[in-house]
Amino acid sequence: MKGTLYGVGIGSGNPELLTYQAVKCIKSCDVIAIPNSGRGASVAYDIVIQALPELSEKQMLQIDMPMTKEKEILKRCHENGGNLLLQYLKQGDVAFLTLGDPSIYATYMYLHDFVLKKGGQAHMICGIPSFCSVASALNISLAKGDEMLHIIPASYPMEHALSLPGTKILMKAGKSFSKIKKMLLIQRESIDCYMVENCGMKTEKKYFSPEEMPEEAGYFTTIVVKEKRN
Amino acid sequence: MKGTLYGVGIGSGNPELLTYQAVKCIKSCDVIAIPNSGRGASVAYDIVIQALPELSEKQMLQIDMPMTKEKEILKRCHENGGNLLLQYLKQGDVAFLTLGDPSIYATYMYLHDFVLKKGGQAHMICGIPSFCSVASALNISLAKGDEMLHIIPASYPMEHALSLPGTKILMKAGKSFSKIKKMLLIQRESIDCYMVENCGMKTEKKYFSPEEMPEEAGYFTTIVVKEKRN
Repeated sequence: MKGTLYGVGIGSGNPELLTYQAVKCIKSCDVIAIPNSGRGASVAYDIVIQALPELSEKQMLQIDMPMTKEKEILKRCHENGGNLLLQYLKQGDVAFLTLGDPSIYATYMYLHDFVLKKGGQAHMICGIPSFCSVASALNISLAKGDEMLHIIPASYPMEHALSLPGTKILMKAGKSFSKIKKMLLIQRESIDCYMVENCGMKTEKKYFSPEEMPEEAGYFTTIVVKEKRN
Repeated sequence: MKGTLYGVGIGSGNPELLTYQAVKCIKSCDVIAIPNSGRGASVAYDIVIQALPELSEKQMLQIDMPMTKEKEILKRCHENGGNLLLQYLKQGDVAFLTLGDPSIYATYMYLHDFVLKKGGQAHMICGIPSFCSVASALNISLAKGDEMLHIIPASYPMEHALSLPGTKILMKAGKSFSKIKKMLLIQRESIDCYMVENCGMKTEKKYFSPEEMPEEAGYFTTIVVKEKRN
């Protein structure tokens, strides 16, 4: 196989959070792959084109990545996407744009592992994870000294997750939001609690306590739960 | 106060991991602060100057940040450093260079909080955390789907930390390394275990099982412990 697949972390929304390595990699690839989640225009494309207008001149490849938990559908999509990428990798390098960092909850990694398994080459280019942007937006530290830091998908059982010592970051908390908010309100005496919706986007909203939080929240919602300092 | 303090995350070693935002911020500040840990030349300075040679023309400010756990010494250093920064902030903006991301275990945050408490302005510029670089070097995902991801300072009691479900990242594991290695060897049937020493530096070394790991490891050692897949 001639080409290498690059999973390029593009950060969490602000095009200025792109690294020099990511931009160099995207520039050097003739084919740019983007995830197609059926949600219309690609968020990843919209971010990168602001920093790199020449993206519009590149060959774009949409890879179907539906937002479903159906294992069979996902497996078929990853195989189809992986095989499509392998076709293009015969000609040269492909950059797959992925939000945040590729190592942290990126569906890109299924394609990465598929290509490696088929004997192809795949590399990861680091990006700024969403929770770092969230911390910056809130102007707070996530962990200091010997505190633990837990990154928790909101689909995980929250009773257990919230009982962990240290700081908890609840990712994509929009879906089970009302349940999470109820639990945070119960614990409010012992925790400091923050929330950012649509971090880095024009629609960004910040909240600094569970009482302030709205009744509903969008998909890109991150909640930070810290142990209250005495 | 005229100026703003910027805690600039410069990533984990490779100057190409600097973001556009970080470089823009460093360029715009007349004064650059770097931590002085008593370990000789600043690692942060050495990284940034590779990407930005004009750094050598800026006014440099060394802030004493000794590698100690003595609370009184630390408190005094943070106060001295914070007061020194406040002096310079009267004139204009100051960029403090910090490895990785400022929100994750950066001693910078003590200065940040001090300046805010004194009525000054302080902002954080995101950087690539070391564990993202470690994942990229190992070419592996850290967490997928509904797996939890735990970032654990190696000073934390390891018996408890290693029993958590999901992926564990043991930071700065060099100091208690022989004890950690023993525990990983005991658990080796149920875990996949990786280690990177000096990630992104010329002296980088990678290990893909506890058996492979050396008897001793340096300060910048990160261990990734994943649950073995069936």
